Amino acid sequence: MSFHFEVLKTQGRARAGVFHTPHGPIPTPVFAPVGTQATVKAVMPRDLKEIGASLVLSNTYHLHLRPGEDIVAEMGGLHEFMAWPGPILTDSGGFQVFSLAKISKIDDDGVTFRSHIDGSQRRFTPEISMRIQQKLGADIIMAFDQCPTPTDRAVVEAAVARTSAWALRCREAHPDDSRQALFGIVQGGIFEDLRARSAQDLLKIDFPGFAIGGLAVGETKQAMYDTLDFTVPMLPENKPRYLMGVGVPDDMAQAVLRGVDVFDCVMPTRIARHGAAFTPDGTLNMKNLALARDEQPVDATCDCYCCQNFSRAYLRHLVKANEILAHMLLSLHNIRFLIRHAENMRRAILEGSLDAYVASFLQRYLQPA
Amino acid sequence: MSFHFEVLKTQGRARAGVFHTPHGPIPTPVFAPVGTQATVKAVMPRDLKEIGASLVLSNTYHLHLRPGEDIVAEMGGLHEFMAWPGPILTDSGGFQVFSLAKISKIDDDGVTFRSHIDGSQRRFTPEISMRIQQKLGADIIMAFDQCPTPTDRAVVEAAVARTSAWALRCREAHPDDSRQALFGIVQGGIFEDLRARSAQDLLKIDFPGFAIGGLAVGETKQAMYDTLDFTVPMLPENKPRYLMGVGVPDDMAQAVLRGVDVFDCVMPTRIARHGAAFTPDGTLNMKNLALARDEQPVDATCDCYCCQNFSRAYLRHLVKANEILAHMLLSLHNIRFLIRHAENMRRAILEGSLDAYVASFLQRYLQPA
Repeated sequence: MSFHFEVLKTQGRARAGVFHTPHGPIPTPVFAPVGTQATVKAVMPRDLKEIGASLVLSNTYHLHLRPGEDIVAEMGGLHEFMAWPGPILTDSGGFQVFSLAKISKIDDDGVTFRSHIDGSQRRFTPEISMRIQQKLGADIIMAFDQCPTPTDRAVVEAAVARTSAWALRCREAHPDDSRQALFGIVQGGIFEDLRARSAQDLLKIDFPGFAIGGLAVGETKQAMYDTLDFTVPMLPENKPRYLMGVGVPDDMAQAVLRGVDVFDCVMPTRIARHGAAFTPDGTLNMKNLALARDEQPVDATCDCYCCQNFSRAYLRHLVKANEILAHMLLSLHNIRFLIRHAENMRRAILEGSLDAYVASFLQRYLQPA
Repeated sequence: MSFHFEVLKTQGRARAGVFHTPHGPIPTPVFAPVGTQATVKAVMPRDLKEIGASLVLSNTYHLHLRPGEDIVAEMGGLHEFMAWPGPILTDSGGFQVFSLAKISKIDDDGVTFRSHIDGSQRRFTPEISMRIQQKLGADIIMAFDQCPTPTDRAVVEAAVARTSAWALRCREAHPDDSRQALFGIVQGGIFEDLRARSAQDLLKIDFPGFAIGGLAVGETKQAMYDTLDFTVPMLPENKPRYLMGVGVPDDMAQAVLRGVDVFDCVMPTRIARHGAAFTPDGTLNMKNLALARDEQPVDATCDCYCCQNFSRAYLRHLVKANEILAHMLLSLHNIRFLIRHAENMRRAILEGSLDAYVASFLQRYLQPA
């Protein structure tokens, strides 16, 4: 069996496991950096490997528009194209169509939209999303879903029905998980009964993993945690659980406590490009004048190349001077910070000390000195 | 003696040597990548080391304006600040003052100008340039000179006189070469008698190395080669010769044939940011539609990380998508290309085959397929 999820240890609802894929094992909990356009912004693949990345995400919507899935396929698929030999996950394109593109028409069959790059008219259906993702060749592919604002009940209810129907069509268009594992996406916003309905619909279809979609899209943190409290237990114990789009340190900790295994987020590279760094004491704005003569590394607890070699004063200089190296070093550090955070939680689960780790982490992270 | 130049072998006027510095040896001929703001744009120091960089240049004018030489000195000097443990050269600031800043006043004492960053008024004199460079702490520092348009004889003649007077003041302000070696700069434009006068003035002052300034600033290639033909023999055999601002492959070859040892240029990183790559067949525009499905590396003869791992199709995608990784990979490759070119010429000199190497290189480089 090329895909196989092993739970090694649990503590409360939290689990430490391994998801085996054709391109290698993914130890969980795991943070997956995002390579929207077949590159994690400002990070070389060999450096991603060095900082412990096991799973990298890429975006179907962006790659469909540019360079196109046919070119990626001709170049040997996404692993070869972007020189990332490890596991890759592609999303379905649904989230980006609804957030980035100008939608011309949406109905039960699919979505017609205009490219945000050149305005050309395009169409996504569950079948088209599957075909694109098959050509891209990622290890984990996602069902085409509709992700609405999570707090408007009528809209969410309609999206649940559509997502269930589309999930079935995705399964039919991709019946064989031996080379690419198709994950279903549970919608339902912040409503327990709608999450239950969505989960029941998806469980009837056989998926090797389940994502929780429609969170971290504007609701409060507490609403997200509450939703995880009732949604995670609806999912099977023996399949990986992926919380889409979440990747700030405190949310990751809260979600691991609630049984989530997989995370992805653009946050570490995005805030890097704005000159900010994750630290155990919260986010540090590298433009601060107070850092102009600060000889300390960005994060004294960190083992990355940035923190092992450069001072805050130097990083501040690079950010102020708008140098690309600032993006490179801060992206590397911020991703390493989240990967290390996931590694630390995994180790804590294996040692039975997760509650203590999370309490200590959150106390320091949420109450900066 | 902390600085010492060894000529290992000559072929015609060309030499293979080693310039020993307190931060390590510089095998010559050498290409020095430029780190204007204390970073070679889009390249990590460890990657510079991997591609064989031995000498890195940085700019006094830029570092004086931001972050300021006092901060660099407090952070342990430029080597520590930018995490480059090898040899560093700083220019004098003269070239940038005359090319980037708005000059308020220039006289025999120095130059008053406005910062191109914030408009603040600043002043450079030979003594101030020395003091700034002493604080920055590079291994090789440059005399403060005036670099005019090379073809206007009256202007060039006045600049030679001023440059000679300033060179003497620099020598007096920096009398000891044991920690930082001060190089003189020969001016004189394209005029043989003015180059001779400038060289004679500088030879009376004791410098451990000599630069040829005022070339590659708008004159024709042939005028530059002709100027090198008569200028290089005016310089001592036992001191390194540095041709400032030159670093395109054909000019480097022509200059090595004429006895130049050291080169620097922003070209490899600048053209990288415009999506172009050096190849043995000339410069390749990575945006070319013809590359969209090209599985070959950028340069099949190259041993760099970019060429060993990525296709032209992928690089084209990155350039079109405006991804930072395009700048990173093309900068790495372009610098490696020039370093390898210098390494190849050095090996050829040691083997007595420089003429054949240069003829073969130029034939292919200047006559693209």
